[in-house]
Amino acid sequence: METISRTKIADLFKNKPFGTQVNVKGWVRTRRGNKQVGFIALNDGSTIKNMQIVIDLQKFDEELLKPITTGACINVNGLLVESQGKGQDAEIQAEEIEIYGTADPLTYPLQKKGHSMEFLREIAHLRPRTNTFGAVFRMRHHMAMAIHTFFHERGFYYFHTPIITASDCEGAGQMFQVTTMNLYDLKKDENGSIIYDNDFFGKQASLTVSGQLEAELAAMAMGAVYTFGPTFRAENSNTPRHLAEFWMIEPEVAFIEIAENMQLAEDFIKYCVRWALDNCKDDLQFLNDMFDKGLIERLQSVLKDEFVRLSYTEGVKILEDAVAKGHKFEFPIYWGADLASEHERYLVEEHFKRPVILTDYPKEIKSFYMKQNDDGKTVRAMDVLFPKIGEIIGGSQREENYDKLYTRAKEMGVPEKDIWWYLDTRRFGTAPHSGFGLGFERLLLFVTGMTNIRDVIPFPRTPKNAEF
Amino acid sequence: METISRTKIADLFKNKPFGTQVNVKGWVRTRRGNKQVGFIALNDGSTIKNMQIVIDLQKFDEELLKPITTGACINVNGLLVESQGKGQDAEIQAEEIEIYGTADPLTYPLQKKGHSMEFLREIAHLRPRTNTFGAVFRMRHHMAMAIHTFFHERGFYYFHTPIITASDCEGAGQMFQVTTMNLYDLKKDENGSIIYDNDFFGKQASLTVSGQLEAELAAMAMGAVYTFGPTFRAENSNTPRHLAEFWMIEPEVAFIEIAENMQLAEDFIKYCVRWALDNCKDDLQFLNDMFDKGLIERLQSVLKDEFVRLSYTEGVKILEDAVAKGHKFEFPIYWGADLASEHERYLVEEHFKRPVILTDYPKEIKSFYMKQNDDGKTVRAMDVLFPKIGEIIGGSQREENYDKLYTRAKEMGVPEKDIWWYLDTRRFGTAPHSGFGLGFERLLLFVTGMTNIRDVIPFPRTPKNAEF
Repeated sequence: METISRTKIADLFKNKPFGTQVNVKGWVRTRRGNKQVGFIALNDGSTIKNMQIVIDLQKFDEELLKPITTGACINVNGLLVESQGKGQDAEIQAEEIEIYGTADPLTYPLQKKGHSMEFLREIAHLRPRTNTFGAVFRMRHHMAMAIHTFFHERGFYYFHTPIITASDCEGAGQMFQVTTMNLYDLKKDENGSIIYDNDFFGKQASLTVSGQLEAELAAMAMGAVYTFGPTFRAENSNTPRHLAEFWMIEPEVAFIEIAENMQLAEDFIKYCVRWALDNCKDDLQFLNDMFDKGLIERLQSVLKDEFVRLSYTEGVKILEDAVAKGHKFEFPIYWGADLASEHERYLVEEHFKRPVILTDYPKEIKSFYMKQNDDGKTVRAMDVLFPKIGEIIGGSQREENYDKLYTRAKEMGVPEKDIWWYLDTRRFGTAPHSGFGLGFERLLLFVTGMTNIRDVIPFPRTPKNAEF
Repeated sequence: METISRTKIADLFKNKPFGTQVNVKGWVRTRRGNKQVGFIALNDGSTIKNMQIVIDLQKFDEELLKPITTGACINVNGLLVESQGKGQDAEIQAEEIEIYGTADPLTYPLQKKGHSMEFLREIAHLRPRTNTFGAVFRMRHHMAMAIHTFFHERGFYYFHTPIITASDCEGAGQMFQVTTMNLYDLKKDENGSIIYDNDFFGKQASLTVSGQLEAELAAMAMGAVYTFGPTFRAENSNTPRHLAEFWMIEPEVAFIEIAENMQLAEDFIKYCVRWALDNCKDDLQFLNDMFDKGLIERLQSVLKDEFVRLSYTEGVKILEDAVAKGHKFEFPIYWGADLASEHERYLVEEHFKRPVILTDYPKEIKSFYMKQNDDGKTVRAMDVLFPKIGEIIGGSQREENYDKLYTRAKEMGVPEKDIWWYLDTRRFGTAPHSGFGLGFERLLLFVTGMTNIRDVIPFPRTPKNAEF
């Protein structure tokens, strides 16, 4: 075959160099045709749009063409021309075709469309070859890039907090133990306690549930930082909203208080949504058409208005009023209750009809490190509540006062020996500071319209599932 | 205190709005002065450069100023003026000062300069407050941003491969086990084997040693992808070059062969080095002056020339010639030997005096997935060798032929049940493809001039060490 340097299909659709000889390589999505002409829909992953390859059957040996079935990988030289067909604007008149790899129709699992999402999860190693997962994972890339760019432009530093940790300070959830001990030969002391001296780290170690506390250390030196890394929860939750392994983004900023923290969160999430609308048009259109007819409109609507700012106390009043007027919730609502998803969605979807930032929660239902308000009852927590998703961001102003933090940690049973280093930031040069956490896959559920969190991460880890 | 919105010190040095009232917040690095005037060197993490705060002692209560010692955090309003002093170009004449947090000189560990790197590792929670670690971690951010930008501009997709995995396919190293089992109550079958049915994933699970195999799955659908995530090795290596937890970048590209893979690696690393020179001038100058007088020159030199391309066989000849001429190596050199760091550095630093990409290694010393050459002896591996660092990148063209891959995996003892999904990429629509891996901390050693890998990651994990 003649050597022409390859052009990505996305670039051909963008630049449309009609009348030139081009080379494309990719995977066959479908093949159809008649006795005179064949049509191959070719996809190379650079865009959801397939390039139509037109084959004049007089010019090609039929035997050569036979193995070109769905899933096969081919290398094509040909002339790029304007397409006559509807729904296409460019196609390639094939002049040379090389087959890189076949895909036996009897065994290749991705034949025609219409596989269930459950089935596709079982072949997670092949599902990126579908339109849906191609679109979702391209958007996953774009959201990651939006996040890094947002923070970089604002002078934040990306900070890698540890994955393996010897303490569960935040108490945010059950942890996975990490060990190199031989489980067939565990050493124990005279009381029957396992001796960790010979474990890799010389003590019991786990996978992190959050990088926040370490990010605070960095913020108290570098000013503004953010994490973006995997976090882990060993909870036996088989729901469409839980993963055992997921990615979190946690900005942490010195010298800002709760109001600026709310603004940062709003700017941040709007930036991401805008990036998706600007950079993922084709993929969004596909997901909108196939899965969620309200998707694009919902993304646009989030950009339109200021997010509502509302105290937890005011929020509970609205919910209590709704109950008084006959609205039925599954879970009881009263001051002090942790809001359920139905409560959050009522505020966002029915009452305000736009995103809501709820603040100043009862201290009993929030973490030890949140700044205590003067009322003695509430802390400067904030949750950003979104349509369809519920809580998408959780954050707070942090307690910067050593004595208050120390006392609250003690009250809540956080051992001092596990947080001496965290307390040190308040002993030495403490300052007001705030931050928040965004579950990356929650954001992806929102921007892709997918409904199961297993479908927005390449290889989901859930109870009884660590394949691939 | 009057409310003026805060400006980062980096921005004041950049924009120099002399004559305006500004607000800065930050940590005191040093304080000196006489009876009339005090000088505070203030750092807010946005730059290595301190802002000098000039205090007219007639205007301030001495009691207020007393707690302003090294490490304290303060909030300053004042007039930005051109500095009279040498080595400064701007300073602030203080008008109002608020103390956010003190740092008791008797207990604050970061007093004057000159702490050993070993001591600073023990206070890793505070070391970002030093010049050195501020510089290193700002550069760490910049290198991450360079990497994402490089790939994004070229149409690669960032792809998150799993951290927890049920298979050690690559055999790249010893693994950490991940479990939720109660180690005091392990269930065993009649043969005494531990029953993993009730472990979280229903089978034995570990932390990943590489995302490459999963990245290949994605490349065979999306065309070009890269990973950037943590990887783990449970090796008991206490050296300045090994971490148990480190970050890797692994691009994987469909339709490119070894020559293009080499070019990609060269372009990539030059892009990162150029980014450092362009965006990290002050930090680089500091590290150059304090730690490694040849640093900036070495970075510039890498950009000057094409990297040498050389086969392993040619490389061994050069090394054998050197031995024949009397050069002494610690380890023997012969065709088939794995090159030691001294061999790699001889080629780079003494023979060619520039980076070298070595290719086509004996198949016995490389992984099962590398493309086999027709000679039956070598594989299309490539290692990028750098001055001072040795191997900085390792990669290869991948074996795309199902039968060859299957046979080689079998020969090397990789169980088929662990890689059926990987083999599937060669069963269905296989194509030539290539990729490589870069250890992020290796890159950081090169661009920062640090000599111990524990000093380029915020919280190093090494044998017996998982603090913070």
